[in-house]
Amino acid sequence: MYPVITISREFGSGGRDVGEKVAEMLNIPFYDGAIIQGVAEESGYTAEYISDRAEVTAGVEQWFSGAMFPISYMSNPQDQIFALQSKIVLECARKGPCVIVGRCADYVLEKADIDALNVFIHADKESRKQRVLSRSDDVPENVEKYLEKRDKGRKAYYRYYTDKKWGNYHNYQLNLDSGYLGVDFCAQIIVDTVKRREGK
Amino acid sequence: MYPVITISREFGSGGRDVGEKVAEMLNIPFYDGAIIQGVAEESGYTAEYISDRAEVTAGVEQWFSGAMFPISYMSNPQDQIFALQSKIVLECARKGPCVIVGRCADYVLEKADIDALNVFIHADKESRKQRVLSRSDDVPENVEKYLEKRDKGRKAYYRYYTDKKWGNYHNYQLNLDSGYLGVDFCAQIIVDTVKRREGK
Repeated sequence: MYPVITISREFGSGGRDVGEKVAEMLNIPFYDGAIIQGVAEESGYTAEYISDRAEVTAGVEQWFSGAMFPISYMSNPQDQIFALQSKIVLECARKGPCVIVGRCADYVLEKADIDALNVFIHADKESRKQRVLSRSDDVPENVEKYLEKRDKGRKAYYRYYTDKKWGNYHNYQLNLDSGYLGVDFCAQIIVDTVKRREGK
Repeated sequence: MYPVITISREFGSGGRDVGEKVAEMLNIPFYDGAIIQGVAEESGYTAEYISDRAEVTAGVEQWFSGAMFPISYMSNPQDQIFALQSKIVLECARKGPCVIVGRCADYVLEKADIDALNVFIHADKESRKQRVLSRSDDVPENVEKYLEKRDKGRKAYYRYYTDKKWGNYHNYQLNLDSGYLGVDFCAQIIVDTVKRREGK
């Protein structure tokens, strides 16, 4: 049986596309927006509201800087959303092999002792800039600044909830540069890894 | 034409074995001890003397903490050895495709604008412990402490000479967990990457 595959990624690295490709190649479910939607339905919040809070935002950085307080002390909406998201991540993983992008899924599954292949996708700035510009017209003028800001949010969010460093090699079995390798070949490496492990 | 492949690695991760395997599979030269030997011959130092200085040692950490001084200010033997090693790394790379393990080769080649595939190999503590114990009887009693100490040395050495973070995903196109993937499969991923790039 395949392990669950979690994908963390730099903004604009195409990590989401890698995840979709892997799910397609292995014919297993893919979760990303679907998780947010699930949280939305359960909590009564709209998907848009949750998406706004789940990454970046000045709020996360504020909470992060205040992280010396025990988490139980901070029963803010962000924490409630994280708890709901984690619950849904676990439900997805328990149903069987799947690909989960973002949401600190590597950490959530580790805590629940669920076997996972954890992947981090990154890329050089130029590739990420091109990708972001090609997929949307609605990109701020200073794209580099925008990339940095989005990653800063992901980093702080991950750090706040997991107490681990986002992107640090200790947390991932595969850490791949999609700018150099390409999205398709990143997916191929992951699929090869899964199949090799399954064959053991 | 294959790129030059550089391999950095956590102590005990089998990164050297991965490099040897890759060189064998691609039938290209492998450099590691050979570089040290080359430095030894050129400088008149013995290989043992240079090997002692090239990693770890309290001295490196002292120099590192004093790194606010310009490097030109510190014409110590360590710096001279690094300069000689870098020269030999460049000579090896200019001869053609090869595998170079350690010696901040990724940084040295980057500075010289030589195309390289940079790989970092790491593994969980248990795998590394087992590997270290299996390859030598001469291992200190507290193996975990020993692993930490060796890695601390590599980290400080890399930081001192490159001003970059050892193991940080920005510096490598592939960052692989040999404890999870196994040495042979790490080598296979690298070979596949090289061949795929060559085919482009």
